[in-house]
Amino acid sequence: MQIELNKYNNSWYKPGKSKLTQLLWYVINAIVVNSYIIPISSFKVFLLRSFGAKIGKNVNIKPKVNIKYPWKLEIGDYTWIGEEVWIDNLEKVVIGKNCSLSQGSMILCGNHHHAKSTFDLIVRPVVLEDGAWIGAKSVVCPGVTLKTNALLTVHSVATKNLEANSIYQGNPAIKIKDRKIES
Amino acid sequence: MQIELNKYNNSWYKPGKSKLTQLLWYVINAIVVNSYIIPISSFKVFLLRSFGAKIGKNVNIKPKVNIKYPWKLEIGDYTWIGEEVWIDNLEKVVIGKNCSLSQGSMILCGNHHHAKSTFDLIVRPVVLEDGAWIGAKSVVCPGVTLKTNALLTVHSVATKNLEANSIYQGNPAIKIKDRKIES
Amino acid sequence: MQIELNKYNNSWYKPGKSKLTQLLWYVINAIVVNSYIIPISSFKVFLLRSFGAKIGKNVNIKPKVNIKYPWKLEIGDYTWIGEEVWIDNLEKVVIGKNCSLSQGSMILCGNHHHAKSTFDLIVRPVVLEDGAWIGAKSVVCPGVTLKTNALLTVHSVATKNLEANSIYQGNPAIKIKDRKIES
Repeated sequence: MQIELNKYNNSWYKPGKSKLTQLLWYVINAIVVNSYIIPISSFKVFLLRSFGAKIGKNVNIKPKVNIKYPWKLEIGDYTWIGEEVWIDNLEKVVIGKNCSLSQGSMILCGNHHHAKSTFDLIVRPVVLEDGAWIGAKSVVCPGVTLKTNALLTVHSVATKNLEANSIYQGNPAIKIKDRKIES
Repeated sequence: MQIELNKYNNSWYKPGKSKLTQLLWYVINAIVVNSYIIPISSFKVFLLRSFGAKIGKNVNIKPKVNIKYPWKLEIGDYTWIGEEVWIDNLEKVVIGKNCSLSQGSMILCGNHHHAKSTFDLIVRPVVLEDGAWIGAKSVVCPGVTLKTNALLTVHSVATKNLEANSIYQGNPAIKIKDRKIES
Repeated sequence: MQIELNKYNNSWYKPGKSKLTQLLWYVINAIVVNSYIIPISSFKVFLLRSFGAKIGKNVNIKPKVNIKYPWKLEIGDYTWIGEEVWIDNLEKVVIGKNCSLSQGSMILCGNHHHAKSTFDLIVRPVVLEDGAWIGAKSVVCPGVTLKTNALLTVHSVATKNLEANSIYQGNPAIKIKDRKIES
């Protein structure tokens, strides 16, 4: 068999908002969120909330952040979203309190069935529990949960769930040591 | 010996078009292709063809795609070029039918001779045969061919040819399993 | 213990210039340096020097380069800074002569104490000695020195010092062979 993208069919997938709302967010994301133009986090939080995101208090959103669908996004109190972070949330992304998404990191929710000639779309949510930290240029794959305080190091790739209070490195990321938090 | 970039000489390299054409494409790439401004794939296909790219039917080009030289690019029918894909084609890049270049992936054609004090430029073509898929944030190195349906996983690096119907992971990417396609 | 970013305190950290200068550079970086708008290296070198960078002769700076603080940057003669390079220099970054930072590579100077509930900021300088080369999409971590002619391959991550005349690959990067330079 061969891949036949002309037979690809994702009509079952629901973005969750009208085409008009999607287009409006596309424009706002391009101009205000995924840019340097207004480096004021609270304004971006306001915009995201206006489009349905659930965002806690004192969340810090840096410049050039790329967010697919705000209405599929939850962010807890005090969490940081770094410069050039890309949240490609075709599905729900739930980020807890006191999390850090370092600069250039990426969260993926979409995949394709590699063994299907029709390349079927697969979407899976991603969860970052409280205190989780994903390092610069790291990637979290669809369906993955980072348990409390899990740490994905710089440029690593989380292909499956990361245990609580643990540090992971590499592609695919493997546990390299414990993360024990002290005052 | 030491590196002496003041003696670097790439005058033998031919970009293939006049300086003016290069500059014109630089501007169009910056404004229209590597941007959010016109999210209409067919318009970008039209521009690429106008600059010499050979592009099949129903090719889907997402926003923020960075293409060095369209006149050194071939793309087959139904292929997808994802958001923030970077095709740095100093040499010919030939992409087959039904391929996918996922978001943030990169194709490199240029390298330098690491053992030469003059850091000599090396350019090599890249080929993605029909049905090949390069994952999000993956990189294909100069001179590499992905055989039919080869799959390079998320954030992996293809440093040498990938066998047909095979899945590769890591940096450098190694084969982790077969890819058997069913209907 | 848990992470408490509301207790994060980086007031001890000194960016080194006034808020106004930081804002001015933010704007210039966004418009001129981290963009396609003026693809003339000498103009960008002039701007960087105006903001305190020490830059040697014949340095080549490509488009879309992101530099945090020019006043914490030194670049030696004949060095190349590739397209989409990101120098996130919260601390001093010293780049020698005849170095290459390939396209999409990144230098990090900031980290956080992963075991502290207050997520304490850690900043460390980065040094690239003469002839060092960091490959496309590679990352150099805070505090790391690349000794003379060290080479970090495509998409690899330098988490500790790299020996002179040596080639490193992977995440974390390990030495894979010697780099012996000939005329």
